[in-house]
Amino acid sequence: MNFHYPNGKKFEPKQPPQKRKVKSKQISYSNRGMTLEEDINETNEYYLAQDIAVIHKKPTPVQIVDVHYPQRSAAVIKEAYFKQPSTTDYNGLYRGRYVDFEAKETKNKTSFPLQNFHEHQIEHMKKVTNQDGIAFVLLRFSLVEEIYLLPFPALLKFWDRMKSGGRKSIKKQEIEEMGYKIAIGFHPRIDYLKTVEKLFL
Amino acid sequence: MNFHYPNGKKFEPKQPPQKRKVKSKQISYSNRGMTLEEDINETNEYYLAQDIAVIHKKPTPVQIVDVHYPQRSAAVIKEAYFKQPSTTDYNGLYRGRYVDFEAKETKNKTSFPLQNFHEHQIEHMKKVTNQDGIAFVLLRFSLVEEIYLLPFPALLKFWDRMKSGGRKSIKKQEIEEMGYKIAIGFHPRIDYLKTVEKLFL
Repeated sequence: MNFHYPNGKKFEPKQPPQKRKVKSKQISYSNRGMTLEEDINETNEYYLAQDIAVIHKKPTPVQIVDVHYPQRSAAVIKEAYFKQPSTTDYNGLYRGRYVDFEAKETKNKTSFPLQNFHEHQIEHMKKVTNQDGIAFVLLRFSLVEEIYLLPFPALLKFWDRMKSGGRKSIKKQEIEEMGYKIAIGFHPRIDYLKTVEKLFL
Repeated sequence: MNFHYPNGKKFEPKQPPQKRKVKSKQISYSNRGMTLEEDINETNEYYLAQDIAVIHKKPTPVQIVDVHYPQRSAAVIKEAYFKQPSTTDYNGLYRGRYVDFEAKETKNKTSFPLQNFHEHQIEHMKKVTNQDGIAFVLLRFSLVEEIYLLPFPALLKFWDRMKSGGRKSIKKQEIEEMGYKIAIGFHPRIDYLKTVEKLFL
């Protein structure tokens, strides 16, 4: 049905109806511009929509100091600070199992710096592993677009090597040996649960 | 050992040494001033320290609009807004199982308003239950200091009753019948996992 505004201008719907909320950039053939976080979020949305898993990114922790309450509109946070997270960024549920992971990327070509992780994140994943949860990290070498799933016990081995005076990074070759390369797909982008299933279930 | 400052004043330690960080208000015999959230956080810290479970509150989701970066000091968020959470507030891992819950309190005496929950939280807990996770709510009647664990399937029953035109709250009597009263203790304050163990494990 067409109808016209009183000014004679034809009504045009602002955007075509969509079956589900898909960001247009996800449809582009190339993904060079997307961050690891966006790729993982898109993947988790896919898992959720397909009833494969319930995995969410935790919100960024923020220390709120000052909030204003303007009349008739939403509360505005006027002063806040970023807090260091005490856990990993992602957790959830897959086939009855608790899944917990952190995702990091580097522009290095030959190694992955361990400074990307914090002591308390390592402690957290240790506790998760001890309680029979599934803990791992997703490591992306952004210049070559390679993503690896490294199970937490392997990460811990390299972390402990650093703590006892060894190198402060993991060689790419070591990641290739002890991690599992994840194929980058279209939908979902990073099907990491396929690897989780093979490794842990 | 006693010693004196140069001014002759005797040194008094500011506070007695403590074995672990315990907020002084937790030691008071009454807990009227503590919120449900504080009680649950204290309980979760206890579970974590005792290697009983790994359960955390998710950070409050915030949409960050403007951040300043003053030289030599931390980034300051100058404009941000509260976002509605898409999941529940608490999740984690207990004896290999994924645990997910929301905690709410009311000053009502005879019923618990269902407006405390959002549609997407209900959908989230439905998905968790379908994936073999453990989902429930903790409901506190703050004036009488009573806390109940209500398993998600029972909450869903009352939610669906509301959606089909029925009452917009759960009668306290219904919560007493279908929920499980949680004894309030000293340390931990709210030992809800004892009930989870009986009900789900």
